[in-house]
Amino acid sequence: MSIARIGILTAGGDCPGLNAVVRAATKHALKNNIEVFGFKNGFDGLVKNQYIILDDKIVSGILTRGGTILGTSNLANPFNYTLPPLASPEEPKDLSSMVLHTLKTNRIDALVAIGGDGTLSMASKFIDMGVKIIGVPKTIDNDLSATDFTFGFDSALAVASEAVDRIHTTAESHHRVMIVETMGRYAGWIALRSCIAGGGDICLIPEIPYNINVVAKAIEDRQRKGKTFSIIVAAEGAVDESGKMAVQKKVEGSTDPIRLGGISGIIAAQIEKMLNVECRVVVLGHLQRGGTPTAFDRWLATRFGAKAVDLILKEDFGNMVALRGTDIVSVPIKEAVSKLKKVDPNGQEVKTALEVGTSFGSPTLG
Amino acid sequence: MSIARIGILTAGGDCPGLNAVVRAATKHALKNNIEVFGFKNGFDGLVKNQYIILDDKIVSGILTRGGTILGTSNLANPFNYTLPPLASPEEPKDLSSMVLHTLKTNRIDALVAIGGDGTLSMASKFIDMGVKIIGVPKTIDNDLSATDFTFGFDSALAVASEAVDRIHTTAESHHRVMIVETMGRYAGWIALRSCIAGGGDICLIPEIPYNINVVAKAIEDRQRKGKTFSIIVAAEGAVDESGKMAVQKKVEGSTDPIRLGGISGIIAAQIEKMLNVECRVVVLGHLQRGGTPTAFDRWLATRFGAKAVDLILKEDFGNMVALRGTDIVSVPIKEAVSKLKKVDPNGQEVKTALEVGTSFGSPTLG
Amino acid sequence: MSIARIGILTAGGDCPGLNAVVRAATKHALKNNIEVFGFKNGFDGLVKNQYIILDDKIVSGILTRGGTILGTSNLANPFNYTLPPLASPEEPKDLSSMVLHTLKTNRIDALVAIGGDGTLSMASKFIDMGVKIIGVPKTIDNDLSATDFTFGFDSALAVASEAVDRIHTTAESHHRVMIVETMGRYAGWIALRSCIAGGGDICLIPEIPYNINVVAKAIEDRQRKGKTFSIIVAAEGAVDESGKMAVQKKVEGSTDPIRLGGISGIIAAQIEKMLNVECRVVVLGHLQRGGTPTAFDRWLATRFGAKAVDLILKEDFGNMVALRGTDIVSVPIKEAVSKLKKVDPNGQEVKTALEVGTSFGSPTLG
Amino acid sequence: MSIARIGILTAGGDCPGLNAVVRAATKHALKNNIEVFGFKNGFDGLVKNQYIILDDKIVSGILTRGGTILGTSNLANPFNYTLPPLASPEEPKDLSSMVLHTLKTNRIDALVAIGGDGTLSMASKFIDMGVKIIGVPKTIDNDLSATDFTFGFDSALAVASEAVDRIHTTAESHHRVMIVETMGRYAGWIALRSCIAGGGDICLIPEIPYNINVVAKAIEDRQRKGKTFSIIVAAEGAVDESGKMAVQKKVEGSTDPIRLGGISGIIAAQIEKMLNVECRVVVLGHLQRGGTPTAFDRWLATRFGAKAVDLILKEDFGNMVALRGTDIVSVPIKEAVSKLKKVDPNGQEVKTALEVGTSFGSPTLG
Repeated sequence: MSIARIGILTAGGDCPGLNAVVRAATKHALKNNIEVFGFKNGFDGLVKNQYIILDDKIVSGILTRGGTILGTSNLANPFNYTLPPLASPEEPKDLSSMVLHTLKTNRIDALVAIGGDGTLSMASKFIDMGVKIIGVPKTIDNDLSATDFTFGFDSALAVASEAVDRIHTTAESHHRVMIVETMGRYAGWIALRSCIAGGGDICLIPEIPYNINVVAKAIEDRQRKGKTFSIIVAAEGAVDESGKMAVQKKVEGSTDPIRLGGISGIIAAQIEKMLNVECRVVVLGHLQRGGTPTAFDRWLATRFGAKAVDLILKEDFGNMVALRGTDIVSVPIKEAVSKLKKVDPNGQEVKTALEVGTSFGSPTLG
Repeated sequence: MSIARIGILTAGGDCPGLNAVVRAATKHALKNNIEVFGFKNGFDGLVKNQYIILDDKIVSGILTRGGTILGTSNLANPFNYTLPPLASPEEPKDLSSMVLHTLKTNRIDALVAIGGDGTLSMASKFIDMGVKIIGVPKTIDNDLSATDFTFGFDSALAVASEAVDRIHTTAESHHRVMIVETMGRYAGWIALRSCIAGGGDICLIPEIPYNINVVAKAIEDRQRKGKTFSIIVAAEGAVDESGKMAVQKKVEGSTDPIRLGGISGIIAAQIEKMLNVECRVVVLGHLQRGGTPTAFDRWLATRFGAKAVDLILKEDFGNMVALRGTDIVSVPIKEAVSKLKKVDPNGQEVKTALEVGTSFGSPTLG
Repeated sequence: MSIARIGILTAGGDCPGLNAVVRAATKHALKNNIEVFGFKNGFDGLVKNQYIILDDKIVSGILTRGGTILGTSNLANPFNYTLPPLASPEEPKDLSSMVLHTLKTNRIDALVAIGGDGTLSMASKFIDMGVKIIGVPKTIDNDLSATDFTFGFDSALAVASEAVDRIHTTAESHHRVMIVETMGRYAGWIALRSCIAGGGDICLIPEIPYNINVVAKAIEDRQRKGKTFSIIVAAEGAVDESGKMAVQKKVEGSTDPIRLGGISGIIAAQIEKMLNVECRVVVLGHLQRGGTPTAFDRWLATRFGAKAVDLILKEDFGNMVALRGTDIVSVPIKEAVSKLKKVDPNGQEVKTALEVGTSFGSPTLG
Repeated sequence: MSIARIGILTAGGDCPGLNAVVRAATKHALKNNIEVFGFKNGFDGLVKNQYIILDDKIVSGILTRGGTILGTSNLANPFNYTLPPLASPEEPKDLSSMVLHTLKTNRIDALVAIGGDGTLSMASKFIDMGVKIIGVPKTIDNDLSATDFTFGFDSALAVASEAVDRIHTTAESHHRVMIVETMGRYAGWIALRSCIAGGGDICLIPEIPYNINVVAKAIEDRQRKGKTFSIIVAAEGAVDESGKMAVQKKVEGSTDPIRLGGISGIIAAQIEKMLNVECRVVVLGHLQRGGTPTAFDRWLATRFGAKAVDLILKEDFGNMVALRGTDIVSVPIKEAVSKLKKVDPNGQEVKTALEVGTSFGSPTLG
């Protein structure tokens, strides 16, 4: 069988580099006389048969642009899809077959699915149903063990590090404790690396539950050395040792978790109460997802996109592209998903952070 | 009388460019064989007689650094100073005389006071008491009518505009309404100009109370034109038309006003309820204050600092430096303070914004 | 008469902010039900009747993009146009009438001409021939006296200042003299302001001829103070006191003036010969013209573009938009062109630079 | 034996991240009660016994600063050192023993040598003479095979990519061919990756000799597709197929190779002659070395610095730190030096570049 037409989709939260993958895959495919259908808004476009035909002109100039020209959707899981109100009750079970129908109708020989854990798990199910799929991993949190880095992470890190730099000057001038809250609900990579890169004093991540007394003591230790300010870099998923999920639950119970301050607001209030010090918070939120990708991310995304089409040309389906050292390799999607790469509390990176003086607010570490 | 020694202080919230003023004033003074005492943490250093002697080496390399090497304080108003617990009750009324005492003891011939409205008002009182002062205006909000621009504003604008750029790609990819909340409690300059510079769709500022229905309608108008996303740039001081201060009061009544989301969290909740659309918020907060100043701010701050010493050399005291067009001029401090420069709802800039399609959420404008 | 259709063109060297002008003018025009023709490559498009019709979709997203979507041309002066080889000999005298023909054929009621001195001079001639024109000034060198600032200048300054910052760390680490060569053939604004903003030690601009011995002495003075490095910011048009234009002529006589090192290469060789010091050069060249405009430039360009259409609506033709303080005003094109704004050697800005320790390499200044 | 005092030096061309290594090594050493001597200007400081004692205060705030607070020197090879004029003729052979003398006198137990190929080769000789050394690799060109990445490279890449972005807008607006010349005398990594990251059309690197006719044809192919501009990214060491080193020799024969335009000036002249097109050049030069390191480089440099002291604590001397995947490992210095990592013309990265449409100007590739 020869490949004449492929589909591409981008699903899940947006991420700098998505367009670079789309561009590279499209250019490489077109060079091999393969047509490219860009499905809109993730699997939603496959369900609804909505697409644009990608040609050289459309992908020209998108390399440097954040977001995705295909649109994306966090919700569109065709396996448990909420239908619009007017749909008839028996339809839901057929949604995944609508996807198959779309692929067949448009004679899509293979699919490049760019997305995170959820997207790749869905892709995995469609592979079982006979769809020819190549996966491209996308997680701004860099928490996939199958690949050394995912694109978007470096761009997020650049934003977080620059934020730590900016906050430094204010903290120093005002003798304050400042908290920078980064993304990272389950993995602390953005917080840990931006803390190392920005010279943060305290780093709070999901993998190392903190004790607020240890955090306070770290600040006091600095004060004793004449350092009148401290910088805390906290992942949004940072958890308190005693009753770990309490804070998180409370936040999730609010009408608007992320936007209303998150974990760092709570920590700030605690510190102000415990120590005689002003404490301010910056929640970076969506700033970490948007904007022009860094050179590294554009390079990685381009290599991923080109490799995805390489695998299609070799008809080596069911695989996901991944970075190992400086090589792009392929790994079976089924193996790749669900192996989360978390920060190892006893690993090298935490050790480095401790060695340069960072506290993790943990009674047992450092 | 000839000037042999001057003092410099930086007071109020930190602001990119403070160090550039300190550097320029020090370099210019030293060239004229004037010694420079840098008082620490604003008027606090004058009350407590805490200073460092500024020489060429200390100010070398600070031009590009955010914050202030002198430290600052939002609170230290020597006219209504809260004494530390152990002080005796009769002391408070003498705090301003402690300032005079510090100046006299150290034989400070003149003082460069770099600060905002509050600082300059205090300076004004000390001028009445015979202190020779030159003021340098500092307000990140650019809300002083005596000068075309204040340093720090351009740097804040750069941060806010870049944030709007970043948010754009996410809004577009996810078909969302995104709100970027900027500084500006009483004046909407940062919000207005970053909205114009970033191509925001809706701009909410203190000077133009909004009606949430008009805001919602502006979003729907865009949807009708096929634009599936909208960007709102909202000043932290944006007010709702009906019961203007309600929101602000509520926020101020919380233990942690700024950090817990501010006005934009409330607007987001309203919009999500009114329209079937996801709405996300980014509160820029302290990111706008910190970091390396822009070229414009370094240039302006350097010109302000040099001019301040020019005025000292001419013994033209009681004045504040200001930018008019491209000239640095001097204006009496007494006249300069308290004339807030607000956005004119009927002025040129709002008109420009309306002309390029921005809505202010106002039932009467546009 | 009412305006139903206008034309826009961008001419001369590209400049960050051109697209922002095009976007603002188009949006404002469309709101007033005026059609907008975008002529391609400056006056070239008017001669050849090449245009695109600008609608809301085309100008969407261009605010942040450098360059011009209309294309530009440095050469296309319809008054002394070099015809392509095959054209018949009598045609040249009719080129300007070809412009008039294009305007008439397409029923263009008025024209927005965005360009520099040359473009506005041409516009001026067409005004004499009855064409209704509004001018928008564009000069990256900021050398037009009719306006406080032109868009593009702040972006160029940002690039130049960042370059000075980068070069600083190398100069310091290697104990070198480093020269940063900026744009500015006739006016030294970019060099002067990036020197002030970047803390350069020596500034060489066309308006203040330098003496290489004075330059060398300034470096030696720094060495004596223990400063083992020096930063020179030189405008490309910097001239040597003795035989001012010699260097420039030599450069212009080469096949490729700018790209082959320019004035700074010559100065570097001289300094290495005179002093026992390594000297390195960076010629910024086209880096200063490209890329995303700064927030200030986007704001200014947007205001210029909207104002241009304001003037069209008022049928107030023959004028150019300009910035005075924070207001956008209109000035007659005829008055505006040819009044170059040069750096005043005895003016405020040079004085500031001298006060913070910058040398101009001049035997008579400082 | 226990380690009580170590020395650190930075040698060779400066590179973003040097200070981060110095800071991390110092902090980690001090935590282990090891004193740290920072020798000045590379091996020069060891020869002349010039150092500063590094404490927590000195390394505070240097993480974000480019260059090196220790100073550096390209020349100071104590094995073939040019003595100052007044030295007696018999001294030169003793220079390496002066290094040993300095180490002994100051009771330096071990040395962290941060530098490139040359520095590590010298270190290797001192290891043979019994000095306890840990090497930290530094090459902005990323051309060391023992490590996946070296710090500084990512920062250089960021500068180069941003330059390509800026140049894009000018090239497009003016329908020009633009050449961006990057560092890379022997290895084309910066050019290749910034070309991939920036979407360059033609990439010229030392490893793939180009043929100017193939370069010209690639430009014409684009013109035929309606693309009126082309971007060339050329490493400074790019070589012409016919008579490979000719160009390089000519450049090296000039009094001032780098600064006078290099290879790209020659290519530009050729292209202008061959095709009817304007061609402009930007030589990035030292811009690629200076300024604040990227987050990645700060992270990598910090990990290298901490690891170097880890190895000292383990008394695992004679090794160099290196990155493999995401782990920091140690490799024998002797093995690490002299294995240059060049771009493989048949490797993955060149393949990716070809797949997205980049030409290497080679008659045999692509």
